[in-house]
Amino acid sequence: MTAPATESCTIGVDVGATTIKSAIVDHGVIVGSTTCRTPNGSAKAVEDAIVESIETLQAQGLTTGGVGIGTPGWTSADRRTVIYSPNLPWRDEPVAEQVEERVQSPVVLENDANAAAWGEYRFGVARGTSSMIAITLGSGVGGAIVLGGQLVRGRDGCAGEIGHTRRESGGRPCACGRSGCMENYVSGRALLRDGGFGPDYDFFAAGAAGETAALAVIAAFGRHLGIGLADSVLLLNPDVVVIGGAVAESFALFGKSAADALAGELGPNWAGVAPPIVAATLGSDAGRIGAADLARAT
Amino acid sequence: MTAPATESCTIGVDVGATTIKSAIVDHGVIVGSTTCRTPNGSAKAVEDAIVESIETLQAQGLTTGGVGIGTPGWTSADRRTVIYSPNLPWRDEPVAEQVEERVQSPVVLENDANAAAWGEYRFGVARGTSSMIAITLGSGVGGAIVLGGQLVRGRDGCAGEIGHTRRESGGRPCACGRSGCMENYVSGRALLRDGGFGPDYDFFAAGAAGETAALAVIAAFGRHLGIGLADSVLLLNPDVVVIGGAVAESFALFGKSAADALAGELGPNWAGVAPPIVAATLGSDAGRIGAADLARAT
Repeated sequence: MTAPATESCTIGVDVGATTIKSAIVDHGVIVGSTTCRTPNGSAKAVEDAIVESIETLQAQGLTTGGVGIGTPGWTSADRRTVIYSPNLPWRDEPVAEQVEERVQSPVVLENDANAAAWGEYRFGVARGTSSMIAITLGSGVGGAIVLGGQLVRGRDGCAGEIGHTRRESGGRPCACGRSGCMENYVSGRALLRDGGFGPDYDFFAAGAAGETAALAVIAAFGRHLGIGLADSVLLLNPDVVVIGGAVAESFALFGKSAADALAGELGPNWAGVAPPIVAATLGSDAGRIGAADLARAT
Repeated sequence: MTAPATESCTIGVDVGATTIKSAIVDHGVIVGSTTCRTPNGSAKAVEDAIVESIETLQAQGLTTGGVGIGTPGWTSADRRTVIYSPNLPWRDEPVAEQVEERVQSPVVLENDANAAAWGEYRFGVARGTSSMIAITLGSGVGGAIVLGGQLVRGRDGCAGEIGHTRRESGGRPCACGRSGCMENYVSGRALLRDGGFGPDYDFFAAGAAGETAALAVIAAFGRHLGIGLADSVLLLNPDVVVIGGAVAESFALFGKSAADALAGELGPNWAGVAPPIVAATLGSDAGRIGAADLARAT
């Protein structure tokens, strides 16, 4: 395949625990893509799969300006190193440098929730806003903050951990070591546990089909989400809260209960501070679109 | 009094519930000042006192580039209007416009906690950092956030409300309508209530003198402060947390208990995220120094 060379394109890679999704992106538009399974095994095996994805896209003949890689876990503030990843075999892994040498292109790393949020901010539902809080709901809960057109990374690159802010003092124990973290109330894992269902139960499909038990769990999930957002909203007073991840497709089932719970938790005196809560619109492409744009912005 | 005219000076006004403190400030250095009592009574009476303070300073013969006014309460995001102030008779009061017309100089408004935090960020203890959370502890609790060299104001100008984030789910009722807000655990009002003492009791003087009851309340206060900071720290991962207000002078009595409580609340997995907690160093001048600098920055 050939196409006119253009430097307006960059490559975005979204490294998930199960899938690596990569694309050539031209200002938010995917013009080429490739997907592979994330290898189980060594750090090197994951790196090889990323490099192969990038090389596959580079072979398409478009001149690309750089590569952005979104990865789960904690990325250094200088965007060169994955410090820790719960789902990948990376510990203080200098991924940017290693991939850069092999693909002969500048590489930036970004936390996957940050990359997806950036995609929504630049090209998705939050386009045109100034400030946003984004929550990516999956088996865990990722968070990201954009203020005044900038991703907030923090001193150590781990700002935006809204999943580990407290939903409830002295609440459910969290894998992170704290207790009562949001992640234990609004993640896929929490939903399954609260419903007493097996790991393959699809709440949102059951809810859409009108199943009462599923709808009750989904409404409770929306309430937890709204209540847990209140402190972050008071702290940052953002234009918008964006809900991302696969559950965004089922936003109609819980959006109102989340908004009502947020308003109730803030109370009448803070009512004016409540931002709209909206669903992400880029779906599973948000991560690679955002990562590609971050490669451009550097 | 006369002095060489210079445009490097601006005027900062810190409007408190009891005192209006004003100064001519040259890059963080006070070169002239005046203080008066805040009038009880009409919005107009407070405005008159502010204008008189500014005119007193203008009469000192220094050319000044603008006026910054720090006020308690909620200031509009465009920094022109005081939307609501709990301690002053201002409701949707276009203070900037009104004062501007009378003093013939550009005026910007800022929330008082923001102004004091900006003073510490530019010229005080947080100088040289990139990001900070500031808490101003008085009878109430003010908060401010600086990220990447910018005050975070939020969509409606009310970001930074750390005093109204939760210390405890379902905790003590707050005047704001929520429950369990930080303000009910770490404010002067909360300290007096927790100690069962009268309104004039000086905990920090008693603690410095070794009084056991006072020291116990102060230690509990430090613990509440540290625990209540954990969520904001996880969300923003700042370089530093600055404690301002009169209690900053007594930081030695509670700083360690606050730092220990923050570390304990974050737990070992997040230990690296804990920033230093430090005392503000500009004392009661922080507000007018910060306000004056904000007048320059516009």
